[in-house]
Amino acid sequence: MSRETVWAIVGGGNGGQSLAGHLSLMGYPVRLYDIFTETVDAINAQGGIEVSGVVEGFGKPELVTTDLGAAVKGADAVMIVAPAVAHKTIAKQCAPYVSAGQTYILHPGATCGALEFRHTLDECNCTPDLAVAETNSLIYACRAPKPGHAVIHGIKDDLVLSTLPAAKNEHVLGVLQEAFPQIVGGANVMQSSLGNANAIMHPAPTLLNTSLIESRHDWYYYREGITPSIGAFVEELDKERVNLAQAFGLDMITIREWYRVAYGVEAETLSEAVKKNPAYAEIRGQKELRTRYLLEDIPTGLVPMIEMGKLMGVDTPRMELVARFGSSLLEEDFFAKGRTLKNLGLAGMGKDDFLQYLQTGVKA
Amino acid sequence: MSRETVWAIVGGGNGGQSLAGHLSLMGYPVRLYDIFTETVDAINAQGGIEVSGVVEGFGKPELVTTDLGAAVKGADAVMIVAPAVAHKTIAKQCAPYVSAGQTYILHPGATCGALEFRHTLDECNCTPDLAVAETNSLIYACRAPKPGHAVIHGIKDDLVLSTLPAAKNEHVLGVLQEAFPQIVGGANVMQSSLGNANAIMHPAPTLLNTSLIESRHDWYYYREGITPSIGAFVEELDKERVNLAQAFGLDMITIREWYRVAYGVEAETLSEAVKKNPAYAEIRGQKELRTRYLLEDIPTGLVPMIEMGKLMGVDTPRMELVARFGSSLLEEDFFAKGRTLKNLGLAGMGKDDFLQYLQTGVKA
Repeated sequence: MSRETVWAIVGGGNGGQSLAGHLSLMGYPVRLYDIFTETVDAINAQGGIEVSGVVEGFGKPELVTTDLGAAVKGADAVMIVAPAVAHKTIAKQCAPYVSAGQTYILHPGATCGALEFRHTLDECNCTPDLAVAETNSLIYACRAPKPGHAVIHGIKDDLVLSTLPAAKNEHVLGVLQEAFPQIVGGANVMQSSLGNANAIMHPAPTLLNTSLIESRHDWYYYREGITPSIGAFVEELDKERVNLAQAFGLDMITIREWYRVAYGVEAETLSEAVKKNPAYAEIRGQKELRTRYLLEDIPTGLVPMIEMGKLMGVDTPRMELVARFGSSLLEEDFFAKGRTLKNLGLAGMGKDDFLQYLQTGVKA
Repeated sequence: MSRETVWAIVGGGNGGQSLAGHLSLMGYPVRLYDIFTETVDAINAQGGIEVSGVVEGFGKPELVTTDLGAAVKGADAVMIVAPAVAHKTIAKQCAPYVSAGQTYILHPGATCGALEFRHTLDECNCTPDLAVAETNSLIYACRAPKPGHAVIHGIKDDLVLSTLPAAKNEHVLGVLQEAFPQIVGGANVMQSSLGNANAIMHPAPTLLNTSLIESRHDWYYYREGITPSIGAFVEELDKERVNLAQAFGLDMITIREWYRVAYGVEAETLSEAVKKNPAYAEIRGQKELRTRYLLEDIPTGLVPMIEMGKLMGVDTPRMELVARFGSSLLEEDFFAKGRTLKNLGLAGMGKDDFLQYLQTGVKA
């Protein structure tokens, strides 16, 4: 291997295989862990991962395994590429192998992923001096149509990464930017956490599309699902997110404004904007209600935003309505199992102590 | 005229014209009031109302007028056949003409219509000893395709009527049953108010059908709008209504059970039941969100049910979610202008005092 940073990738899905293949091709020693024997065996049988698309080649990870400890132990950068609802379980499973100086990166972290990961390690009495980082989205647009094959359609040209504690962000960026120079640092994990657009764009429209989801109609999520009233509601919801960021001193743009910056889409309303966004033209609507749009984006998106609102004294009435309606409709208590202040180990913490914790990783 | 009870009908829409025509044909002296000059002039020009369907004939009201006082003054039974959101205004307008011994009937009353009507008269310092009654639905399935023409497709064979105070119910029934023997008395106005199925069957499905309402699709409200998840949610919502009735000592059946009794429809779920109900087969879904399904059924249906829950100590979390989501989506504060305890003049009243008020009409 031509480079020294040892990478462990936890999760052999679309993102995980793309990362493992790409980083291997860059010359890094890479270990890939997946829970499924079939995935691991298939990759080992062919000796690596075939990568196509904007990156082409045959990447050969050093190790592809179902043994989490073998993958994680001693790795410099551990990339966790898994559904956000699995982060807590993965933290518990990693705890025995964690060592000082490592960096764990939730890629992406949804909202408050790093806080949850760190708290879960603490609960496991796992206290080495390490960095837990999170990104605000996945760096690729990619697919892994089968084990051992990753198709990278595009690589994002910006990605926010923030670290808990924020004081370690420079160190983490130093490691990661060698491979991905387009990563930029966030002020603290609130920047990536509140940059979670899925929490805004998924649960509310999904609820308000319930009948269409369970109907005989085929439909397009953005073009048809964000009707004028739904778009207007989502814009109000998004204001709560921007207000919340403001309370943390973070100057965030609205999602509609972001569509302008990222896609060049100009429109008077969100409903218009998504219709004009070519990247959204072919995204289909789901055909069942129990999808990640609710099951993940409520407990690891809206719930922690609402809870951060409580901590910071920012009202989030629309977020509450959506999260509670989703809980009721699916008969799932997202406030019992979601990323609440209590479940994040932050119950009773004051605003100033919390801001200091984000910076230093030390609870007052 | 062959009969002595003088009827005034307030409202010349579908139900009002059908009632005015039908009661005239029965031989009662009838006065019909409508706000629109065109409606009144058209009926006067042809000298009455042509009634067709299950009732046939040409009904000749004594008076058809835009003068509310002329219609209402001295009438024995004043039938108010108007959207529930207009009840308060109508009460204010009637106040100068009210006299002891009259009966005002909200037909139908939605939820807490009689309480609101009585309270509005009180606010106008209008305190004659009168009865305010309400029905749980309209007695006809009918249409008035143009002024002076009423088509009565069917006449319901049961209708609950309850009176504020309940002590006057026998008297009111005596007057009304002469014309409509199928009317049965409710224990008190909670029986008609909590029998308001529109509050359950309209707002929640409408919200969850938002995208379909604003879509390019034509759709059927019951057959397609009550999908499995929506039906399951509505059944839970309906349990809150039944629980609330229980707190008033009223043994109400669920809406699904009522479909079995009224339409002979047997099904394991509400979603199945509405699909099997032939009466619902052709009911179309709306094409805009701002309809009576939200604008009327939230402030005069869900809101007063939620408020009655507070008074009686019964939780109504799903009703609250729907009412608040509707408020938020339409940017209308249904809790400010709806039938709350405060707006009904019941703020601070205890459960026992309220039960006594329902019975006697006297506030402790």
